Amino acid sequence: MHFASDNWAGAHTKIAESLTQHAGGFAAAYGASELDKKVEAKFNELFEREVAVYFVSTGTAANSLALASVNRPGGVTLCHREAHVIEDECGAPEYFTNGARLHPVDGAAGRINPENLKRELKRFNPAFIHAGQPMAVTITQSTEVGTLYSLEQIAEISSICHSHGLPLHLDGARFANALVSLDVSPADMTWRQGVDIVSFGGTKNGCWCAEALVFMNPDSAKDLPFIRKRAAQLYSKTRFVAAQFDAYLQDDLWLDLARHSNDLAQKLAQHITNSSQLRLAWKPQANEVFAIMKRTVFERLQKAGVHFYDWNPPHAEMHKVMDEEVFARFVTSFANTQDEVDQLGALIA
Amino acid sequence: MHFASDNWAGAHTKIAESLTQHAGGFAAAYGASELDKKVEAKFNELFEREVAVYFVSTGTAANSLALASVNRPGGVTLCHREAHVIEDECGAPEYFTNGARLHPVDGAAGRINPENLKRELKRFNPAFIHAGQPMAVTITQSTEVGTLYSLEQIAEISSICHSHGLPLHLDGARFANALVSLDVSPADMTWRQGVDIVSFGGTKNGCWCAEALVFMNPDSAKDLPFIRKRAAQLYSKTRFVAAQFDAYLQDDLWLDLARHSNDLAQKLAQHITNSSQLRLAWKPQANEVFAIMKRTVFERLQKAGVHFYDWNPPHAEMHKVMDEEVFARFVTSFANTQDEVDQLGALIA
Amino acid sequence: MHFASDNWAGAHTKIAESLTQHAGGFAAAYGASELDKKVEAKFNELFEREVAVYFVSTGTAANSLALASVNRPGGVTLCHREAHVIEDECGAPEYFTNGARLHPVDGAAGRINPENLKRELKRFNPAFIHAGQPMAVTITQSTEVGTLYSLEQIAEISSICHSHGLPLHLDGARFANALVSLDVSPADMTWRQGVDIVSFGGTKNGCWCAEALVFMNPDSAKDLPFIRKRAAQLYSKTRFVAAQFDAYLQDDLWLDLARHSNDLAQKLAQHITNSSQLRLAWKPQANEVFAIMKRTVFERLQKAGVHFYDWNPPHAEMHKVMDEEVFARFVTSFANTQDEVDQLGALIA
Amino acid sequence: MHFASDNWAGAHTKIAESLTQHAGGFAAAYGASELDKKVEAKFNELFEREVAVYFVSTGTAANSLALASVNRPGGVTLCHREAHVIEDECGAPEYFTNGARLHPVDGAAGRINPENLKRELKRFNPAFIHAGQPMAVTITQSTEVGTLYSLEQIAEISSICHSHGLPLHLDGARFANALVSLDVSPADMTWRQGVDIVSFGGTKNGCWCAEALVFMNPDSAKDLPFIRKRAAQLYSKTRFVAAQFDAYLQDDLWLDLARHSNDLAQKLAQHITNSSQLRLAWKPQANEVFAIMKRTVFERLQKAGVHFYDWNPPHAEMHKVMDEEVFARFVTSFANTQDEVDQLGALIA
Repeated sequence: MHFASDNWAGAHTKIAESLTQHAGGFAAAYGASELDKKVEAKFNELFEREVAVYFVSTGTAANSLALASVNRPGGVTLCHREAHVIEDECGAPEYFTNGARLHPVDGAAGRINPENLKRELKRFNPAFIHAGQPMAVTITQSTEVGTLYSLEQIAEISSICHSHGLPLHLDGARFANALVSLDVSPADMTWRQGVDIVSFGGTKNGCWCAEALVFMNPDSAKDLPFIRKRAAQLYSKTRFVAAQFDAYLQDDLWLDLARHSNDLAQKLAQHITNSSQLRLAWKPQANEVFAIMKRTVFERLQKAGVHFYDWNPPHAEMHKVMDEEVFARFVTSFANTQDEVDQLGALIA
Repeated sequence: MHFASDNWAGAHTKIAESLTQHAGGFAAAYGASELDKKVEAKFNELFEREVAVYFVSTGTAANSLALASVNRPGGVTLCHREAHVIEDECGAPEYFTNGARLHPVDGAAGRINPENLKRELKRFNPAFIHAGQPMAVTITQSTEVGTLYSLEQIAEISSICHSHGLPLHLDGARFANALVSLDVSPADMTWRQGVDIVSFGGTKNGCWCAEALVFMNPDSAKDLPFIRKRAAQLYSKTRFVAAQFDAYLQDDLWLDLARHSNDLAQKLAQHITNSSQLRLAWKPQANEVFAIMKRTVFERLQKAGVHFYDWNPPHAEMHKVMDEEVFARFVTSFANTQDEVDQLGALIA
Repeated sequence: MHFASDNWAGAHTKIAESLTQHAGGFAAAYGASELDKKVEAKFNELFEREVAVYFVSTGTAANSLALASVNRPGGVTLCHREAHVIEDECGAPEYFTNGARLHPVDGAAGRINPENLKRELKRFNPAFIHAGQPMAVTITQSTEVGTLYSLEQIAEISSICHSHGLPLHLDGARFANALVSLDVSPADMTWRQGVDIVSFGGTKNGCWCAEALVFMNPDSAKDLPFIRKRAAQLYSKTRFVAAQFDAYLQDDLWLDLARHSNDLAQKLAQHITNSSQLRLAWKPQANEVFAIMKRTVFERLQKAGVHFYDWNPPHAEMHKVMDEEVFARFVTSFANTQDEVDQLGALIA
Repeated sequence: MHFASDNWAGAHTKIAESLTQHAGGFAAAYGASELDKKVEAKFNELFEREVAVYFVSTGTAANSLALASVNRPGGVTLCHREAHVIEDECGAPEYFTNGARLHPVDGAAGRINPENLKRELKRFNPAFIHAGQPMAVTITQSTEVGTLYSLEQIAEISSICHSHGLPLHLDGARFANALVSLDVSPADMTWRQGVDIVSFGGTKNGCWCAEALVFMNPDSAKDLPFIRKRAAQLYSKTRFVAAQFDAYLQDDLWLDLARHSNDLAQKLAQHITNSSQLRLAWKPQANEVFAIMKRTVFERLQKAGVHFYDWNPPHAEMHKVMDEEVFARFVTSFANTQDEVDQLGALIA
C-alpha cells in the first residue's frame, strides 16, 4: 500500500510510449526542436493566450527560477508559513535568488489569510530600505495540506498583490489535481484570477520528469533563457520533456490521472472518517489526506506495509495534535488502485 | 547530415526500452529506490573502488556542483582558457559557488599546459588574501577541442594539484569517447592518475538525460545531498536516471556507442584532410572535428543541409584562422552513420 | 529632542581625539599594524580568554559574516521573529550566506521562547534533506525591543543550541547597554553562558564606525580573513577602527556611555508612565523605550520637534495597539541629556 | 622608508580635523544628514553635472557594487587581465554579483588593448546563451601598474562599450593621481570620454576611509539604496564619510596630495633609472613605481628598512623578469617626503 508520495509512482504507460516514439532521429538541442515548439504551442491553447514556457528539471527549479525572474535587491517573497518553498526545498529559492527572503504569512488550512497578507505588506514602508522590498507573493494550488484556494480566494490574493505592484506566482506541483477538483479551466484558475507565473508540474501526476515554468506575460520572461541556463536547468535534449508533456496533455490524460488520484483520496478520507483509530485532520480537496493517530497505530500501520510519512503539523493546526500522537500524510497517485485504498481501509476500520 | 552536436541525437533504443521497463510500480523517491542503489553499485564496479555517485540533470549541473562541493571563501578554480565551465555554461559554476572565480590557464590543443599551471598557482601566496585562494583545478576529457590528455598528462596535472593541496576535477561530458580512444579503464583514466571528482556524462552518448557526479573519495561528498537538493538538482523520480544508466552501462553499450562516434570522426577527418576546400585544424582524438574554410564554403555547406556550427577559435590557435575564414566544428554521435559522413565527404571533396 | 536613534549621535570627544592622535605616521595596512594588535589584545582581556577579533564596517556586516562563517548548504538560522537580521538588514544575512534561510521563532518581549525554539528545531529531521539543516541560532542582546535576556535565559538557549550541535551567535549592536543593565562582565554575558560568536557594536554607543566580530573559539574563525575580504569588509587603514576601540574601551568609557543612555531611558519611561497621553508598551531594560499613543498625539509631538519613529509592533504584541494608535520607539544615546528627556516629559505630561 | 602602499599612510591632518569638527550634535543617520547632502552636492560641482553618489566603506565595495548595479543573469564583465577586481579583491566582484564572470582582456602596460577588447566581445553571440552576456567593461585609472589611459584611450574604450550597449566603469582608487598627472578635470576624464560609473577613492590619498560610488546617470542607480544596504555597506553615521570628503575636496586638498605623491614617484623613478642595481620596469605616470632587481638586492633593501613588496609581474610583461630576479612595487603617498625618497636613492645608487 503506497501512500508515501505521488512521486513514488513511475511514469504512465503513455508517457513512456511517447518517449520511445521520439527517441530516434536528430533534433535541434536546447529547446529549439519542432517537438518543443509544438508542445509550447499546446500551452498557448491550454491557457487560452500566448504564454512563455520554459521546461526545467524539478518543481523546486520551477519555483526557484520563477522567483529569480522577479528578483530585486533586498527582495522579499511572501508565502504561506508552511509553503513548499520554505519547508521542502532546502533553501533553493533563497539560493537561486541569492538571498531574497521568504516572508511567512500565517493562514489556516494551508491558505494565506488575506488579512494577514495585508498586515505583513504594511510592515514594508518603501522609504525604509532596511526591511527590504517585497518582490512577489507565491501560493500553492493545491496547497501543501491538500486543500484548495477557490477562484474567489485566488482573485482576492492577486488583488492585494497587484495593488502593491507585486506579481503573483502559483506553485502548481499539483496543478491538475486542483483543476479537476474545482472543475475549471487552466485560464480560469490562473490569469483570469490574476496569477502571473505558474510552476506547472507534470512529474507528480504521471510523468518521469516534466516541469514547466509558464509566464502569462511573455515579456516578463525575457531574461529567462539566461536565468535557466545559468541555473543549469537547460536540458540539451529538451525534446524528452516535450515528449512527456505531449502525451500528458493529449486527450485529457493529465486530467484523467488527476481525477483518479483525487477520487482515491476522497475514498481514503471516508475510510479515515469511519475509523475508530484515526481522525481526519481536515477534509481533503485534492490527492493528499492528513490524519492524526496514536503513535502505536502509526507503528502498526508501518509494520503492516503501509507506506506513508509522519509530517510536521502546520503551525496553525498544531493544537490539534496531542503529545503522544502522530500527524501523518497519505498521498494518492495515478498508480494507486481502489483495492489498495480499501485494504488500508480494512486495516484501520 | 547532422554534425551540429552529439546532443541533437535522441536516445538509444536500449535506453528507451529500459525506461519503459522501469516505468511501472512504486519505488522510493529521491534516490532511495532499489534501482538507484543497484546502479550506484555499478559505478563502484566501474571505477574499481567505492565511490559516491549523485545523479543530476545536466553536465553544467555536474560541473557546477562538483565545484560547489569544494568551495571556499574567495575560492579560485584553475581551468583551461576555453574550458566548457568558462565558455559554455553561462556563468553557472560561478553562480552555484556564489562567485568562486574561474582562473584561465593557457595551453595548446585544449589542454592545460603544466608549466602555465605552475606559474599561475605561484601567483597565489597564502599570506596574500587579496588574491583569493585556489580551491580546485578542472580539466576536460575529451577536451573542448576534441583532443585528449594522455594518462601521463593527467598524472602530471594531478601531481601539481596535490602538491598544492588542490582536488582535481575532470569534466567527462564525453568521458566514454576519451576512454575508448585511449583504450583504458575508468579507474586508469581517473583516480589512478589522481583525479578526485568526475562529471560522468551519459547524455551526449545516447541517454536522454543522465549525468552523474562521481566522488572517488565518498567522505569528501558528505554535504552533497544538501548541495544537490539546494541546487534544485534532486529529481524525485531518480530511478528514471538510474534506468538510463542501467542500460547504458550494460554489456558495454556506452563504449560501443562512443567507439562508433569516434570512428566516424576519424573518417570525417580523413575526408577533410583529402578536401581541397577545408583544412583540418588539428587531428581529432574523440568525436569532435574542427576545420577551417572560406566563408563561401561554410555557407555553401549550410545550404546543402549540413548541420554544423561556426565556432570561436581557441586563443592559442587564433592565428591559424584568416580574416575571411570560418572556424567550424563537426560532432559525430552514436546516431550518425558512415553514409552520412561519406555524403559530407563527397560535398567537400 | 533627538530620540530617533542612537546612531543620530556623532562620535564621543575621546573617540575623535584618538583618531587625531593616530592619524600620523605609517602603519601596516589590512589589520597588521601594532595598534590593531594592541586593541585585539584588549579584547582578550575584556573577554578573559583568547578570542579572534575582526573589525568590520557595520553591524549588518558583523551579523552577516558571523552567519557566513557557520554557513552550510541548505543552512537555516533560527532567530526571533522580529530580529534585526530579519527586519532591518535588507536581506544582507541571506545575501552573504547565499541564501541560508532565517527561520523565525516566536517569543514575547523580543526574546526567543525556549519552548518554541525546541519545537521549531524538532521540525528539522536530519534524514529529511528537503527542509535544509539548522546551522545556528542568533539572539540579540539587548533585544530589538529594549529588553534583555537574563544570564539564565541565555544559558537556556545555548543549551538547546549545543544539544543540537549549533553555535549561538549574539547580536550585540547594543552590547554595552545590556552589560551595564545586567551589571555583569562580558565573559559572563557570553561564553560563560554558551555564546560562541558576538557582534560587538561600538557605533551606536559613541564611535563613528567601529564594529567587531568576536569568536570565542579562534579556531572556528580560520576562514574569516577570506570571508571578510571577499565581503569587501576589510578596511585598508584598519587602525582607524582600532583607534576608536582603543579609546572606547579605555577607562570604561564604553560602560559609562551606556550607563548614561540607559539611565535616560529609565527617566523617559517614567515620564511616559506618568503621561496621560502615552502608555508604555513594556518596561525598558536598556536604551530603547516603546510607547503607544493616538495618532494625533504622535503628530503633535513630531511637530513639536521631537525626533522619534513610529515602528512595526512585534507580532506577539500587536494586540496591544488599537487601530487608530501609533506604536513608537524612542532611543536614548550618550549624546542626549536629562534636560532633553525632561523637555519631552513636559510635552507629554 | 615606507613605499609598501599608499594605504600605510594614516589620515591627513585636515581630514582628522574635519572629523573632530563634525563629531558633536545629532544628525539624521543613513545618509540623510545635511552634511551628507552638502557633500553630495559638491560631487555635482566636481563632475559638472548631476550625479548620484553613494558612500561605501572600501574600494572593493565600490567596485563590487558598481558591477552589482549593472548585473545580468549570466553576466560577464570585461576587464584587464590583471585588474584589481580580478587580482586583489578576493572574489568580491563575483560574490556581490552572485557569480557574474570577470573576463580578462590582455593589454600592455596595464591598459586594455582596444583590439583585444573587440575580439573578446566578438566571442559573445547574443543568440548563444551558453557563453553568457556581456554586462560591463571596467578599466582602472591610474592602472594597476602606475600607468594612465589618455583621454583618447578612454574614449576609444567607451566607444567600443557603447556600440555593444555596455556601460563603462572606471575604478578610480587612485583617481586623483591620474587627474593631476593628465592635468584634466574630473568631467574630462570621465563622462566626457563616455565613462558611466566611477569608483571614486579617497582612502589611498589621505582619508581614513572614504570611498564614493558615482553614477553619471542618476537614473541608472535607482536600486542602489537597496543594493548598498543589502551589501552591508550603508554606514549609519554616514556623515563621518561626508566629513572626510568635505575636507578632502576643500581648496583642492585632494589634488595637492596627489600631486605630491606623483612628484615623489617621478623622483624615485629617476633614482632607479640612475641605479646600477635596479632597472625601471616602465615609466611611471602616477604614484606607483615598478622595478626589477636581483633577489639579493631585494633582500638587502628589505633589511635596510625599506618597506616595499615583491609583486606578480603582469602576464604581458613577464618576459622582462629573469628567473633569479624580483619584480617589485614602490608606492608613494601624501605622507612620504622627498628626504625619504632620496635616502632610498642613496641605498640603490
